[in-house]
Amino acid sequence: MKKDILEVFDNQFPDRDYTIEIVNPEFTSVCPKTGLPDFGTITIRYIPDKVCVELKSLKYYFLEFRNAGIFYENITNTILDHLIDMLNPRELTVITEWKARGGITETVTASYRAEKI
Amino acid sequence: MKKDILEVFDNQFPDRDYTIEIVNPEFTSVCPKTGLPDFGTITIRYIPDKVCVELKSLKYYFLEFRNAGIFYENITNTILDHLIDMLNPRELTVITEWKARGGITETVTASYRAEKI
Amino acid sequence: MKKDILEVFDNQFPDRDYTIEIVNPEFTSVCPKTGLPDFGTITIRYIPDKVCVELKSLKYYFLEFRNAGIFYENITNTILDHLIDMLNPRELTVITEWKARGGITETVTASYRAEKI
Amino acid sequence: MKKDILEVFDNQFPDRDYTIEIVNPEFTSVCPKTGLPDFGTITIRYIPDKVCVELKSLKYYFLEFRNAGIFYENITNTILDHLIDMLNPRELTVITEWKARGGITETVTASYRAEKI
Amino acid sequence: MKKDILEVFDNQFPDRDYTIEIVNPEFTSVCPKTGLPDFGTITIRYIPDKVCVELKSLKYYFLEFRNAGIFYENITNTILDHLIDMLNPRELTVITEWKARGGITETVTASYRAEKI
Amino acid sequence: MKKDILEVFDNQFPDRDYTIEIVNPEFTSVCPKTGLPDFGTITIRYIPDKVCVELKSLKYYFLEFRNAGIFYENITNTILDHLIDMLNPRELTVITEWKARGGITETVTASYRAEKI
Amino acid sequence: MKKDILEVFDNQFPDRDYTIEIVNPEFTSVCPKTGLPDFGTITIRYIPDKVCVELKSLKYYFLEFRNAGIFYENITNTILDHLIDMLNPRELTVITEWKARGGITETVTASYRAEKI
Amino acid sequence: MKKDILEVFDNQFPDRDYTIEIVNPEFTSVCPKTGLPDFGTITIRYIPDKVCVELKSLKYYFLEFRNAGIFYENITNTILDHLIDMLNPRELTVITEWKARGGITETVTASYRAEKI
Amino acid sequence: MKKDILEVFDNQFPDRDYTIEIVNPEFTSVCPKTGLPDFGTITIRYIPDKVCVELKSLKYYFLEFRNAGIFYENITNTILDHLIDMLNPRELTVITEWKARGGITETVTASYRAEKI
Amino acid sequence: MKKDILEVFDNQFPDRDYTIEIVNPEFTSVCPKTGLPDFGTITIRYIPDKVCVELKSLKYYFLEFRNAGIFYENITNTILDHLIDMLNPRELTVITEWKARGGITETVTASYRAEKI
Repeated sequence: MKKDILEVFDNQFPDRDYTIEIVNPEFTSVCPKTGLPDFGTITIRYIPDKVCVELKSLKYYFLEFRNAGIFYENITNTILDHLIDMLNPRELTVITEWKARGGITETVTASYRAEKI
Repeated sequence: MKKDILEVFDNQFPDRDYTIEIVNPEFTSVCPKTGLPDFGTITIRYIPDKVCVELKSLKYYFLEFRNAGIFYENITNTILDHLIDMLNPRELTVITEWKARGGITETVTASYRAEKI
Repeated sequence: MKKDILEVFDNQFPDRDYTIEIVNPEFTSVCPKTGLPDFGTITIRYIPDKVCVELKSLKYYFLEFRNAGIFYENITNTILDHLIDMLNPRELTVITEWKARGGITETVTASYRAEKI
Repeated sequence: MKKDILEVFDNQFPDRDYTIEIVNPEFTSVCPKTGLPDFGTITIRYIPDKVCVELKSLKYYFLEFRNAGIFYENITNTILDHLIDMLNPRELTVITEWKARGGITETVTASYRAEKI
Repeated sequence: MKKDILEVFDNQFPDRDYTIEIVNPEFTSVCPKTGLPDFGTITIRYIPDKVCVELKSLKYYFLEFRNAGIFYENITNTILDHLIDMLNPRELTVITEWKARGGITETVTASYRAEKI
Repeated sequence: MKKDILEVFDNQFPDRDYTIEIVNPEFTSVCPKTGLPDFGTITIRYIPDKVCVELKSLKYYFLEFRNAGIFYENITNTILDHLIDMLNPRELTVITEWKARGGITETVTASYRAEKI
Repeated sequence: MKKDILEVFDNQFPDRDYTIEIVNPEFTSVCPKTGLPDFGTITIRYIPDKVCVELKSLKYYFLEFRNAGIFYENITNTILDHLIDMLNPRELTVITEWKARGGITETVTASYRAEKI
Repeated sequence: MKKDILEVFDNQFPDRDYTIEIVNPEFTSVCPKTGLPDFGTITIRYIPDKVCVELKSLKYYFLEFRNAGIFYENITNTILDHLIDMLNPRELTVITEWKARGGITETVTASYRAEKI
Repeated sequence: MKKDILEVFDNQFPDRDYTIEIVNPEFTSVCPKTGLPDFGTITIRYIPDKVCVELKSLKYYFLEFRNAGIFYENITNTILDHLIDMLNPRELTVITEWKARGGITETVTASYRAEKI
Repeated sequence: MKKDILEVFDNQFPDRDYTIEIVNPEFTSVCPKTGLPDFGTITIRYIPDKVCVELKSLKYYFLEFRNAGIFYENITNTILDHLIDMLNPRELTVITEWKARGGITETVTASYRAEKI
C-alpha cells in the first residue's frame, strides 16, 4: 500500500470547519491466514484542513488492498495513518465493516483528532 | 455560477427566528476530472434575517451548475458563500449528498452562524 | 385572509397546561410568482390559555388561502400571528411542509412562547 | 358521563411505584357542532396509589361517551379529572388521537402529577 | 371545463402500440353538495393513436376543476370523454382516488377501448 | 334501518360500465347478544346502471346502524339488499371486516350481479 | 401460584453486575371477572446476586397461572415479588403486555432495585 | 442523438434466449416547452440475437440527451428504435419513469418483438 | 473450554483507542438440564490494548462449546473471563441472545472495563 | 443416521389428501471437508398416506446429524429417503437452505411422488 497514490487538492475554504463523508461498499482484500478474499464497507469521515483527498485517487488507493493479505484491524489503522499523513485533517474517523467469514462478522472503528494549536 | 441570479424578497417577520428548509434531489453538475455528470441531493436550511431566497430563482441558480466542472467540496462551499452574500442569514447549513461513482458515495456538510451583535 | 373567521370556545380546564396538535394534509394556496397552485401539510401545536380554536372554523379559515397568492414563509407566519391574536396561547408552533415544485420541496417552522407573568 | 360507573379494586402493591398503560383504539363520541360521530384512540398511563381501575368498568365508562356531544379537548380533560377523582393516582396521562374530519386530525395530551406529601 | 385547453402533439411512432401513464396526486375540486374542497389522485393510462396529450396543457386542464362543483363519478367520466375526444386513443383508463370525507373514501375507475377497424 | 335515507343521483354515463368503490373504516353497530359496540370497515364496490348513490346520504345511512343490535352477517346482507333496491346496479359487492372480539375477527362478503336482459 | 416451583442455580460470577433478559410471548391466565382466557407477553430483566433462575422451572412456574383468575396488575407484581423472594436480585423489572379485550389493551411495568449495603 | 455512439460486441451464446436488464436512474434531458431539465429512470430489457450493447458506450449515448429538448414519449421510442437498429434483438422493452413536474409524474413503456422467421 | 485455543496477534496501533466488534449468529451449545441443543448469537465488542484476538482461532474457540452442557449465564461470563485473560483489553462487552426454548427467549449481557493506571 | 429413531402414528384421515409442513430453522451438521459446522433451515412438506411422523422423534432424528460430516446434497436426499421409508407418503418434498460459507449460500430441493395404483 503506497500512500502516495493518494492525490489531494487545495481546500479552498480553510477558514471553515466542514465535514466530508465518503463510503465505499465495494472494498476487498485478502485474509492473511487463509488467502481467501474478504469483503467490506469502508467509511471515511473528516474535517479537512489545508487539503482534501481527490476521490478518483482514493478509488485507486483502495484498489491497492485487493491482493494484499492483511488483518481487518491493520487495514483500518493503516488507512487512518495514511490519510492523517496525506491530509493533516482536523478530525478523521475510519470505520470498516466486514462480511461474514465462517458465519462471523467484524466491525473496526478508529478515530483521530488534531491537537488545537 | 453567478450568484446574482438569486432573487430575494423581504422577510416580513424579521422579529422572529424561524427556520426554512429547502431540498433539491435533482441537482446535477460535471466531474472536473472525467467530464462525466454527477448527481446529488442538496439541502439548504436557514434562519432568515432581512430577506428570504425566492424559490424559482434558486431553481435557476442550481441550473447554472448543470454543465460546470467542479468538485463536490467546492460546490457545497460555493453555495454556502453565495447564500451568505445574498441573504445575510442568521444561520445556514448546506448539505450535498452524491450518488455513487466507482461504487463510492460522498456527503459534504458546511454551516454558518452569524455573530450576534 | 380574515382571521375573524376563526371561532374559539372557552378552555374549560385553564388551570392545566395541556397540548393540542392539529394536522391538515390538504392545504392548498396559489404561488404569487406563477399563479399555479401549491399543496402542503400544515401542523399546529399549542398549549391553550383561556380559549381553544374550534376545528370547523379552522377548516374554513384554511379555505381562505385556497385562491390566495402568497409565499410559503408568509403563510406560515401569518397563521402563527392570527392564532396568537385569537387564542393568546401559552405556546404555539406552526409547521408547513410543501410538495415539490420544479423538483424542490420546502418546509417552514415558526414558534411562539408567551412570556410568563 | 357519570364517573361512578368506574369501578376500582385495591392496589395490593401500594409500596411500589409501577406503571399501567391502557389503550382503547375503538373510542367514539359525537361532534357537538355537527351531531356526527367522531372516532379516536384513547391512551391512559398511570401510577396507581391505593386503587386501580377495573378494566371492564372502564370499557362501560367509555361507552357513556358514545352518544354524547362533546369537544375533543373536553373529553380528554374530563377523563383525566374523573380518573383523578376515582383513583387518586400518583401520576396520570390521557392522550386522545382523533381520525380526520374535513381532512384534519387532532391529538390532545393532558397530564397530572400528585403533589408529594 | 373546456376540453380545448388540452393541447396535443403528433405521435411520431404511430406504428407501435405503447403505453403512457400519467399520475397527478395533487388534484382538487369542490363538492357540489357542501361547497367544500375535495382532494384526490388522478391516474391516466393510454395507448396513443395519432396524437399524445401535452403534459403542461394537461396540468392547466386539471386546474379548471379547482373551483368547480362536480361529483367524483362525473369528474372521472368527463375526463375520460374529453381525452377520447382530443386524443382518439387506442385504449384509455382513468382512475380517481379520493381522500376521506366523513371518514369515507371513494375510488372510481372508467375505461375505453377503440373498436378495431 | 330505513333504506330511503339513501339518496341517488342520475348516472350521466349509463352507456359505459365503470366501477365505484367506497370504503368506510369508521362503521360501528351494537352486538345483539351483549349490547356492546362492534367496530368494522365496510367496502362497497359496484357498477352503476341508471343511478349512483350520493356519498353524504350514504354516511347518514351508515349512522342508522350506530345504535342498532344486529349480527355481522345480517348487516352485510341488509346493506346489499338496500343498495340493490335503491340503485339497481349492474354488479355490487359488500365486504364487512370486523375488529377482534375475544381475540376473534370476522369478515363477511356478499355479492350481486344483475341478469342481462 | 407456588413460588417454590422456581428453581435457582448458583451465580458463578457474583463479582460482576450483568444483565439477564427473559421474554415469554406465550403467557395465558384467566380473567377474574369473566372467566375468559387472557393472553400476554411477559418480560423479565434482572441483575443477579447470588443465584439465577433456572429457565425450565420458570416455564413450569408460568404454567401455574394458566387456570388462575387474577388481575393483570396482580400477576405483574406477584411475579416480581416471587422473583425477589427466590433470587434476591440486585435489580429486577417485570413487564406484562396483554392482548386486546373488548378492543382495549393493557401494559403493566413494575421494577425493584436492592438497597446498596 | 447519434445512434452510432452505441457500440456492440458479439453475443457468444446466440443459441440460447436469455435476458439482459439495464437500469439508469440518472437520466436527464431538457423539456422542449420550458427549457428546464427533466430527470428520469430508464430501464432497458432485451433478449439479444447476434450482438449485445456495450455498457460504457450506452452511458455516453445517454449523455447525448443531457442538453437535448425532447418529449418523454419521443425519448422512449427513439431509444427503442436506436437499439433495434444497432442490436436487432429478439425482444426489447424500454421504460422511462419521470420525476414530478407541476406535481404530475409520467411513465412511458414501449416494446418490440422480432418476427420469428 | 480451553481458553488457550484463542490466538492473539500484536496490536500494531496501541497508542490509539479503537473499537472492534465481532458478531457470531451461529453459536450452538447444549442445555445442561435436557441435553438438547441451544442456538444463539454472540456479540463481542472491545478496545484492544497490547493484543487483538485472531478471528479464526475465535471460531475454533466457539466450536469448543458445541457439545458442552452449560447454562447461558455461564457461557456469557466464561467467554468474558477468557477474553479478559487472553487480551487484557481496555474495555470488553459480551452479549448472548438465545433462540426460544419452550417459547421463552433469553439475552445475557456482561461487561468489563480495565482500571486506568 | 439411524432412520428408526423416527416414530410414526396412524393417519386417522387416510381418505383425504392433506398437507403437513414442518420447518426446522435450527439444523446443524458438520462439513466433511473442513470439519467445521454448517447451519441451515430444513423444510419438510408431505401428504401422508397411512402414517404421520411424530414431531418429537423427528427432533431427535435431526439431532443425529449434529456431529455427522456430510454434504448438503446428501443430507437432503438422505432425509428424503428415510422419510419415504418410514412414511410411504403420497407426496414429499425436502428443502435445505444453508447459511453462507465463504460468502456463498446453497439451497437443495428434492421431491418424491408416489405412483398412483
